[in-house]
Amino acid sequence: MNSFGHHFRISIYGESHGKSIGVIIDGCPPGINLKEEDFFEDLSRRKAGAKGTTTRIEDDVPHITSGIFQGKTTGAPIHIYFLNKNVQSSDYKDIAQTPRPGHADFTAHSKFQGFNDPRGGGHFSGRLTLAIVAAGVIAKKMIPDVKINANLTHVAGSTDINAQIDKALQNGDSVGGIIQCTADHVPVGLGEPFFNSIESQISHLIFSIPAIKGIEFGKGFASADLKGSEMNDKYLEAGITSTNHAGGINGGISNGNQILFRVAVKPTSSISKPQQSFNLKTGEPQTLEIKGRHDACIALRMPVIIEACCAIVLADFHVSKRI
Amino acid sequence: MNSFGHHFRISIYGESHGKSIGVIIDGCPPGINLKEEDFFEDLSRRKAGAKGTTTRIEDDVPHITSGIFQGKTTGAPIHIYFLNKNVQSSDYKDIAQTPRPGHADFTAHSKFQGFNDPRGGGHFSGRLTLAIVAAGVIAKKMIPDVKINANLTHVAGSTDINAQIDKALQNGDSVGGIIQCTADHVPVGLGEPFFNSIESQISHLIFSIPAIKGIEFGKGFASADLKGSEMNDKYLEAGITSTNHAGGINGGISNGNQILFRVAVKPTSSISKPQQSFNLKTGEPQTLEIKGRHDACIALRMPVIIEACCAIVLADFHVSKRI
Amino acid sequence: MNSFGHHFRISIYGESHGKSIGVIIDGCPPGINLKEEDFFEDLSRRKAGAKGTTTRIEDDVPHITSGIFQGKTTGAPIHIYFLNKNVQSSDYKDIAQTPRPGHADFTAHSKFQGFNDPRGGGHFSGRLTLAIVAAGVIAKKMIPDVKINANLTHVAGSTDINAQIDKALQNGDSVGGIIQCTADHVPVGLGEPFFNSIESQISHLIFSIPAIKGIEFGKGFASADLKGSEMNDKYLEAGITSTNHAGGINGGISNGNQILFRVAVKPTSSISKPQQSFNLKTGEPQTLEIKGRHDACIALRMPVIIEACCAIVLADFHVSKRI
Amino acid sequence: MNSFGHHFRISIYGESHGKSIGVIIDGCPPGINLKEEDFFEDLSRRKAGAKGTTTRIEDDVPHITSGIFQGKTTGAPIHIYFLNKNVQSSDYKDIAQTPRPGHADFTAHSKFQGFNDPRGGGHFSGRLTLAIVAAGVIAKKMIPDVKINANLTHVAGSTDINAQIDKALQNGDSVGGIIQCTADHVPVGLGEPFFNSIESQISHLIFSIPAIKGIEFGKGFASADLKGSEMNDKYLEAGITSTNHAGGINGGISNGNQILFRVAVKPTSSISKPQQSFNLKTGEPQTLEIKGRHDACIALRMPVIIEACCAIVLADFHVSKRI
Repeated sequence: MNSFGHHFRISIYGESHGKSIGVIIDGCPPGINLKEEDFFEDLSRRKAGAKGTTTRIEDDVPHITSGIFQGKTTGAPIHIYFLNKNVQSSDYKDIAQTPRPGHADFTAHSKFQGFNDPRGGGHFSGRLTLAIVAAGVIAKKMIPDVKINANLTHVAGSTDINAQIDKALQNGDSVGGIIQCTADHVPVGLGEPFFNSIESQISHLIFSIPAIKGIEFGKGFASADLKGSEMNDKYLEAGITSTNHAGGINGGISNGNQILFRVAVKPTSSISKPQQSFNLKTGEPQTLEIKGRHDACIALRMPVIIEACCAIVLADFHVSKRI
Repeated sequence: MNSFGHHFRISIYGESHGKSIGVIIDGCPPGINLKEEDFFEDLSRRKAGAKGTTTRIEDDVPHITSGIFQGKTTGAPIHIYFLNKNVQSSDYKDIAQTPRPGHADFTAHSKFQGFNDPRGGGHFSGRLTLAIVAAGVIAKKMIPDVKINANLTHVAGSTDINAQIDKALQNGDSVGGIIQCTADHVPVGLGEPFFNSIESQISHLIFSIPAIKGIEFGKGFASADLKGSEMNDKYLEAGITSTNHAGGINGGISNGNQILFRVAVKPTSSISKPQQSFNLKTGEPQTLEIKGRHDACIALRMPVIIEACCAIVLADFHVSKRI
Repeated sequence: MNSFGHHFRISIYGESHGKSIGVIIDGCPPGINLKEEDFFEDLSRRKAGAKGTTTRIEDDVPHITSGIFQGKTTGAPIHIYFLNKNVQSSDYKDIAQTPRPGHADFTAHSKFQGFNDPRGGGHFSGRLTLAIVAAGVIAKKMIPDVKINANLTHVAGSTDINAQIDKALQNGDSVGGIIQCTADHVPVGLGEPFFNSIESQISHLIFSIPAIKGIEFGKGFASADLKGSEMNDKYLEAGITSTNHAGGINGGISNGNQILFRVAVKPTSSISKPQQSFNLKTGEPQTLEIKGRHDACIALRMPVIIEACCAIVLADFHVSKRI
Repeated sequence: MNSFGHHFRISIYGESHGKSIGVIIDGCPPGINLKEEDFFEDLSRRKAGAKGTTTRIEDDVPHITSGIFQGKTTGAPIHIYFLNKNVQSSDYKDIAQTPRPGHADFTAHSKFQGFNDPRGGGHFSGRLTLAIVAAGVIAKKMIPDVKINANLTHVAGSTDINAQIDKALQNGDSVGGIIQCTADHVPVGLGEPFFNSIESQISHLIFSIPAIKGIEFGKGFASADLKGSEMNDKYLEAGITSTNHAGGINGGISNGNQILFRVAVKPTSSISKPQQSFNLKTGEPQTLEIKGRHDACIALRMPVIIEACCAIVLADFHVSKRI
């Protein structure tokens, strides 16, 4: 399924080493100012280049080919694509036959009967998140009052993020991290329970992003250790609570407090160290040394992706409001 | 949105103190043996009655009114309902005007402009999970080789679950817990990325369940503290790994290992202790003493609900397989 | 697929000779007055009893079991069911083995591998339209300014409908008819092209109704014989046209004129005359004499069903409006 | 809504005079041979150039940018786009302010608050059908045994199609037509009633195509004039009928006979003759002379589009089969 959303709906395509990555955005209201420069800030936050990120550097220029007229959205579907230019497919010759531990190589090969594009993870590449960040830029414009902000708070269990990344780079290894995302000024009443709670929709989209292994809202896993008298957010006055343990959501519906969630990002699967694998054709054990360019800490590039997911979900709830 | 699933699709209705709770199950293949007794075991696992659970005890007899002929599913939609009998709506007189901290009372009132049924949480009640457990029974029959098993592993941060519940009962308080769910013998290749990864679908459904605040797959949040060389599941031989840190899923697709996830259940919001709230009409601060019957530890009744969610998602992937 | 609609969404269940027929209606806004009596008028228009309709007469009392509190909709899903009481399943003993020409007996048997409920057509029975009429009553309340009106204009090619039905009854035969449906006061701008044009949604739902073989909007098939200069609706002034050949829809979007469409209803397949069929088990040719009670002209009972379909689609567009 | 389909799902974008028209095709199984040349035959059937078609001639070269690896589908979404090159937007200066009678100009302007791209009808242009024909080529490859064939049988009420088009061209007018489409070798059992009957899905997609005003299956509107004893398809032997009045579908499910339907195409709205309209800004009456290039008989280019719609629906049913 390459689509997500109900009224504000995104449909994506592309492979890591194919011609282009793209997204169609349906359900954006007409009359919103939109130009290609509007994407630059968020796209550059996602970009590689900093220490700990891959040396595959794409210019990531967004090309809008529909849905815009005279600088404004028309209400018709918006198509945005990005060319893949800096491709070194030869790096992936081995991978085609030797699945990388921790990657989708084996499952994609099995599910698609060996016809999947194995270069750079193909459709399972983190490069697809480019489409999500682009959609997120539009989503943020649809809910201009809402302020969404995601940050990398921990890497390898530590807040000294720099040090952890240096260590990983020295060891040819990789590290994971924790990202915290908040959304301020979300109006009361977004969310469509029973099945489309805010948490359901956010977690659904977030778990599409490669490398995410957990999500928690408000007090999250810590709430399992609390008593009800500690966890409940007491009302100081009408609709105003003293705490925000619920993370801004009750019964799947926004309560006017800050929406807050954290996600766990596992360490990048691609590491320089040799790893045990097997040959997909013969089934024989094989040692794999990954030569492709990769991130030592993919979590570094994640905050803007997580923001985009949050914005897409909130924008969809915003335009889907029935009442 | 009262529906979940693609091919195997459930649609629910009901309120805590309404006439009945029910579910339509669409997309169940024909020819599966199904009788009302088949539901008893899972329904009784969800039932109240044990220490730490509410004294509202319903008989929870499932009534099947369509989709079955001569003891077998027909392929047409199956409708199952449960009567609400043991209702003490008078307990909820105060709640109609005074939102319970931690509950959906305030958000439901806001979203539905005061027309929501406030008795017992109305449509936001945990009683709706009865419909999900019933659907789960059918889902389990659709994937008979898959063995799903959920357990409450921690209450209030401790494995001495009994002691924690005693303490909560003594104090008129409530406690949360952690549930771990596993699914064995899941075939390789289930999951429909990009957007319908196994994690996306499971988390979507799980976060519909009241009181869930977090979910993690495999190593989950702990993976954020690991190095790639520790986290990656090495291949011992073709498709066989030495560890299962990924929780049975790579790239959103099942890899043949045990699927494993954990969910955090917050302490029941309804507690006997007086709490600060406000009057929905006047906006004035008000102290609330909840008189309704409630669970000291809702997590006690959750494992079978979590199993049902897991089964529903896997059954949907099973019948949706395109390849 | 037992569901239809996007925001205003109906999900149905039931078989002709099962325990009950029902529908869940999701996405109805809160605060609408709704009681069981509100259904009586439309339900009685669908009912049998008049000349040319079946002698199976059900009382068709609607039972609402959720989604209503203190006489108003709550915003939660509404469940309505109808008991099947006047069931003579013995009439259908033969049919279980001998498919009725023109019916779904053979296709349902094939698709569901013989597990389908064959009594009275099972899930393929026109009795399911009861659920649609019930949903239509609610839909009409959601768009109170829109006036929807359907009439049977022709039976067996004639406007002397009475005479044609008499003749069919005398001959143990059945007759088809044409129904015209109009919707007045539809605001400009409903419809969600490219794929969810008004015509797409109306035809989708209408062709769910058993016995419908054609649909046309505005000038319909006659437009194929016209010149553009004849067909185009000239503008007299801003948004006002001299004619309504388009049937109130341009580019899939309502233009403010009356929405107008016609549907072709084939003659009831069940007739008293002996017909050639075959035995589903042995494959041997077999003559079939249908003993069940049936309509000589099912089109007589159709107008209110067609109105319901029109109302459901327009109500869905109404609550789905993004702009 | 820019998407259609359940498992085999297309999502489109583009405007008549924008940069490109495109489609993402999701749910195509892996391993199907696909190259750009495969599209040429169907695309050329849709192309303009013949008498009675517009003088806007595009080369319509399909560009595939994802979902193909080593000449075969991978199972990932396939993106195909077409550049708009032969654009004379100056022709449409007037139209931006003066809606063409019979077109979506007025409704699109109203719905999208004047932000829609008015050039050449924008997103409401028949040029979007290019995307549907491209998707149809892939759909046909997914059901290679099924033979789909559509033909223009009547123009302006006559089978002398040539003569009617000559007359229209002489008069600066346009003409409509009837297209008949058949699908042979459709297996028994496709279709997902209650709501996703074959007729429902085909009509839904067909009514997305600009200029369609009616559809009928099998005997269609003529069936309303028949008696049941005439209409019913008698069984000669197991599953074999003497006639095919039902058009290959009973109860919304394919019965193994040829699927047959006819659609009514209205005359092209754009004609050379002056027409009465009004100014969208001032509301004042205005005479419109359309200068853009247009088809005298759009129905001439329709058969391959109708075939594509039929193929897309059948391919979706094919991959969605649950049983």
